[in-house]
Amino acid sequence: MHITILGGAGFLGRKVAARLAAEGALGGCRISSLTLFDLAAPPQPDGATFPVHSLAGDLAELPPAAIPPGTDVVFHLAAVVSSAAEADYELGRRVNVRGTDAVIDACRRLAAPPRLVFTSSVASFSGGQDAVLADDARQVPANSYGAQKAAAELFLADASRRGMLDAVLIRLPTVIVRPGRPNKAASSFVSAILREPLLGLPASLPVPDDFAVWVCSPRRAVEWLLHAAAMDTATMGLDRGINPPGISATVGQMLEALDSVRPGASALVERRPDPAVAAIVGGWPAAFAPVRARPLGFTAHESLAELVQAFIDDDLEDTRRERNAG
Amino acid sequence: MHITILGGAGFLGRKVAARLAAEGALGGCRISSLTLFDLAAPPQPDGATFPVHSLAGDLAELPPAAIPPGTDVVFHLAAVVSSAAEADYELGRRVNVRGTDAVIDACRRLAAPPRLVFTSSVASFSGGQDAVLADDARQVPANSYGAQKAAAELFLADASRRGMLDAVLIRLPTVIVRPGRPNKAASSFVSAILREPLLGLPASLPVPDDFAVWVCSPRRAVEWLLHAAAMDTATMGLDRGINPPGISATVGQMLEALDSVRPGASALVERRPDPAVAAIVGGWPAAFAPVRARPLGFTAHESLAELVQAFIDDDLEDTRRERNAG
Repeated sequence: MHITILGGAGFLGRKVAARLAAEGALGGCRISSLTLFDLAAPPQPDGATFPVHSLAGDLAELPPAAIPPGTDVVFHLAAVVSSAAEADYELGRRVNVRGTDAVIDACRRLAAPPRLVFTSSVASFSGGQDAVLADDARQVPANSYGAQKAAAELFLADASRRGMLDAVLIRLPTVIVRPGRPNKAASSFVSAILREPLLGLPASLPVPDDFAVWVCSPRRAVEWLLHAAAMDTATMGLDRGINPPGISATVGQMLEALDSVRPGASALVERRPDPAVAAIVGGWPAAFAPVRARPLGFTAHESLAELVQAFIDDDLEDTRRERNAG
Repeated sequence: MHITILGGAGFLGRKVAARLAAEGALGGCRISSLTLFDLAAPPQPDGATFPVHSLAGDLAELPPAAIPPGTDVVFHLAAVVSSAAEADYELGRRVNVRGTDAVIDACRRLAAPPRLVFTSSVASFSGGQDAVLADDARQVPANSYGAQKAAAELFLADASRRGMLDAVLIRLPTVIVRPGRPNKAASSFVSAILREPLLGLPASLPVPDDFAVWVCSPRRAVEWLLHAAAMDTATMGLDRGINPPGISATVGQMLEALDSVRPGASALVERRPDPAVAAIVGGWPAAFAPVRARPLGFTAHESLAELVQAFIDDDLEDTRRERNAG
């Protein structure tokens, strides 16, 4: 089995690559080769028993070697993220839309349509704190990133219908806990209020404790992506989109989970209401009612305490090392 | 007021141009100039009291003169239609998606964001004979044309949110009675069973008499487009899409209306079941429940008999003349 990860240098791309290297197989099939593609050549995962090709380039000018003949599975995780797509309209359109068209064209040239796993986003919906979105909820994006992701979903579903590829489109919740540093993304605080106290550092909370967010852990996101790569799509029909079973959690519940794993840690979180941040994140849907995902085999989310513990187990030491080096 | 019609040589484009020429004003504002753009230079409407500029070109390489400085209203009616977009994937993408991006870019360059009226389509939905689609129904297209129209809606709504333009997106029903000849489009029969008997010619009916279609007349479609060009969009919010108040009519009801206007005409319609056509049109939503359109000022549809009479009044003689000439 030949696999490509577009966006292989990203947070989730590296985790998917590490899992493939550790397991050597996907859906019961032995992996023959892995191609990693990103703006900068992605790092090789540790311990791979198969050849790994690492390529750098522009998604919108996708080089043929990124999806070589014989590719069976493409993880299309490459994107200009929400704050960048909002700040630079052309850049978002170029990567998130033209880039997806380039991926479709590369898949069409293959002898057999590959499975394509695409990360779409809750940012393609609006709704706010009162929303509980059903599987057939209309995507009415409130930002250019969400509009571009929703459009890419349409193109990939149409390409699936035409037999050019075989897509599963996963609308990921806000993924927490992200490693790295706090950044200017409006969603940054959701990871920061858990990550920073675990590093012994203070964090700011710009919204009230009862503010709810639809979240998932990186571990669970990777499980869903790997499942999507190997699942049977025969029953999906025209609708290739999946709202996976994340969890709707209030900030207060997240801080309780933090304290249950690391007692007293939430004392490092300072309430600093920020109306500008609250206005942006207030438009995100706080909850979904995913029904379709479960019979299709997308596993339920673990508890918030397990989510916090997973960050400690998987990412805390690397994050600390990077901070000390930086 | 400076107006542009993209797709000005098409069936609806010519009717909009004729109305603007006849009225000399739009929404109470005097028209100063009209620019018509299409693959071939559109014909001048009769009786215009303002300058009319007619331009030919490729929508995806939109020349600046198509949307000149000072443009107040753009009717974006240009498209590769459903059968052509299905037959030629690149062509549909180039015109329906890249072309719409080119329109957005032209609008962004103007000093003030123009009103943009876009014709989207019921082909962006699926559902079938049992469907009665609400205003917030999800667009799950079953053809490339519908996917491209739904994506263009996303881009135009996002461009509206960003202040690049001010869009109203009208998801037109199947427009009947179309002038011209029967063609290979799966929807061709819906117009043909009314038009051909009125010309004294036979027509084939490939579906049962109880087959229902969501339709509107060209007259009503033009009314909606003109209303969309002048209406107040302040209350629309992020959602710029309108399901206008068409009518859901069975083929049997259409033939009754035909006979009420021209007694005995339906005898020229021959039942010839065609499973291939039935399979395609069977996926189209047969009805909508439009609620939002009415308080926004989109007028209700006339009766089927009025629809038939409107074709006789507006298009029958021209159609007969073209047939005799051809």
